[in-house]
Amino acid sequence: MNKKIVLTGDRPSGCLHVGHYIGSLKNRLMLQDTHEEYIMIADMQVLTDNFEHPEMLEKNILNVALDYLAVGLDPKKCTILIQSQIPELCELTLYYLNLVTWNRLKHNPTVKAEIKQKGFGENVSAGFMIYPVSQAADITAFKAHLVPVGEDQLPILEQTVEVVRKFNRTYNTDVLIEPQAMISNCSRLVGIDGKNKMSKSLNNAIYLSDSLDEVRAKVMKMYTDPNHLRVEDPGKVEGNPVFIYLDAFDEDKKRVSELKEQYQKGGLGDVVVKKHLLSVLEVFLEPIRNRRRIFEKDPASVLSILKEGSIKARQKVTLTLDEVRRAMHLKSHF
Amino acid sequence: MNKKIVLTGDRPSGCLHVGHYIGSLKNRLMLQDTHEEYIMIADMQVLTDNFEHPEMLEKNILNVALDYLAVGLDPKKCTILIQSQIPELCELTLYYLNLVTWNRLKHNPTVKAEIKQKGFGENVSAGFMIYPVSQAADITAFKAHLVPVGEDQLPILEQTVEVVRKFNRTYNTDVLIEPQAMISNCSRLVGIDGKNKMSKSLNNAIYLSDSLDEVRAKVMKMYTDPNHLRVEDPGKVEGNPVFIYLDAFDEDKKRVSELKEQYQKGGLGDVVVKKHLLSVLEVFLEPIRNRRRIFEKDPASVLSILKEGSIKARQKVTLTLDEVRRAMHLKSHF
Repeated sequence: MNKKIVLTGDRPSGCLHVGHYIGSLKNRLMLQDTHEEYIMIADMQVLTDNFEHPEMLEKNILNVALDYLAVGLDPKKCTILIQSQIPELCELTLYYLNLVTWNRLKHNPTVKAEIKQKGFGENVSAGFMIYPVSQAADITAFKAHLVPVGEDQLPILEQTVEVVRKFNRTYNTDVLIEPQAMISNCSRLVGIDGKNKMSKSLNNAIYLSDSLDEVRAKVMKMYTDPNHLRVEDPGKVEGNPVFIYLDAFDEDKKRVSELKEQYQKGGLGDVVVKKHLLSVLEVFLEPIRNRRRIFEKDPASVLSILKEGSIKARQKVTLTLDEVRRAMHLKSHF
Repeated sequence: MNKKIVLTGDRPSGCLHVGHYIGSLKNRLMLQDTHEEYIMIADMQVLTDNFEHPEMLEKNILNVALDYLAVGLDPKKCTILIQSQIPELCELTLYYLNLVTWNRLKHNPTVKAEIKQKGFGENVSAGFMIYPVSQAADITAFKAHLVPVGEDQLPILEQTVEVVRKFNRTYNTDVLIEPQAMISNCSRLVGIDGKNKMSKSLNNAIYLSDSLDEVRAKVMKMYTDPNHLRVEDPGKVEGNPVFIYLDAFDEDKKRVSELKEQYQKGGLGDVVVKKHLLSVLEVFLEPIRNRRRIFEKDPASVLSILKEGSIKARQKVTLTLDEVRRAMHLKSHF
């Protein structure tokens, strides 16, 4: 039986952190064994709200690719590609824009929330407003059955489903596939500040590429329970990032629950539990860091992985575009 | 010295009429001798408000190409191309959409007027709203210095100039060329109804491909001066399409002014002057009709002209896109 197709990816806006690992990379590692998995480094999408700084893309693309390879995504099992290397996606986007009303774009809840969050106001670019249609092109171009998304991204996927239905109905075809959301069952990992989800812009992230010293410094200044002042005081584990991280990374669940019990009762100091967390994180991060170092020494091999993946992906997308053009009664390209 | 570059073209929505000849084709015939002229059959643009009927495009593209060749546009002197055969234009469009605010698009006067005229209201497609940016891609891709436009199309060209300036400023480059408008000094030819400009949708057009019988029937039912009831009555020549067409097509200006004088004084019947107009139109239309017939018999040769033109155009556009990507620090396509 053919494997189901999954499309997933990241905007290359910096290095990936342990929040990315828990929220998506971990899932992708499983999917590469069971699905036909395409992982897109979405550089065109970065430009929709960062068009002034395209010069950062090259470095960021390499860093994201290094993180992928470091965690164990295997180019023999999945296809890693660079979005801007597949110009056929642009043509698909323009066809789909004719199927979507201007008004509908204005009312996409995800886009509205992001405009507010990013403070774009009246100056939002047309490129940003249409990015859900560009994502519809990405998803349908690969004929993805499944798209891993967070809850907040569901409206983007709904928009894709609308495009698929309108296209297939209008052109009396079944060329495009309706994708399904694969909603992550782990909520996004909180940052070391304990307040917000882990994010580059909030400076509260532990990166997959952080050195031992960096990880140690971040763990040691990690927010805990502000009322847990003395070792003998009882402490709270709910909302306490140290324990949230232990839940996420410590394989020894029994030990975690013993530590929680002791912390809640009193008698377990923050420094002790943080040292334990550091050792747990190191068990996870050290092999990643080591694999990353090997690839870092040979950037040409990383670029060649990206090139091969992009070429393979482009072949797949070109087939879809040909089908799309045929369904629309447009002549093939000369 | 290098010739200046001109980009012009038509939406392939049907056959071209004598109004197109006076308004643009005549000018293009001159430009093919003096300029590097690209003539775009803008099929992607038709889809922005006609996405349900792409199946009409193939026939319409052929008809427009036949009209071009019939009036004497010469593929040895100009480049005739099909827009959808140049997918690089889509990629340029997506880059430019990041440089234009959503708000700016909403306030383009040409687009606003067209939305009203076409009755799109709230259902206007996103593709239609962004078509000025798509035209900016068309114009800049060919590095056009000059774009022949009607007055009503000036806001579209202004939008292009804005994109050029913002691109060159943002990426600190001079890759894109600011185009200038070449405003037609002949107003649009009125239709045979004498009320509106000649247009397919108003059923008031004489087509370049009309047979002698069709032209005769249209001339004979042409609107004249409604108060010119008897031959001996004085008639009006202002706003009288018969005389407007004589002004446009009769080479013998002396004869036209004699006829006008006689008509205004009284004693020149509508039928007589219409018969004269018919003979004048036939001097113009017969060779066009004959050339069209020759090409109609050999559609493969027309397609091969379109193919060669599109391939040549695509090479030029690809060079521009490469420069654009370099200016943006994006890697070349693998």
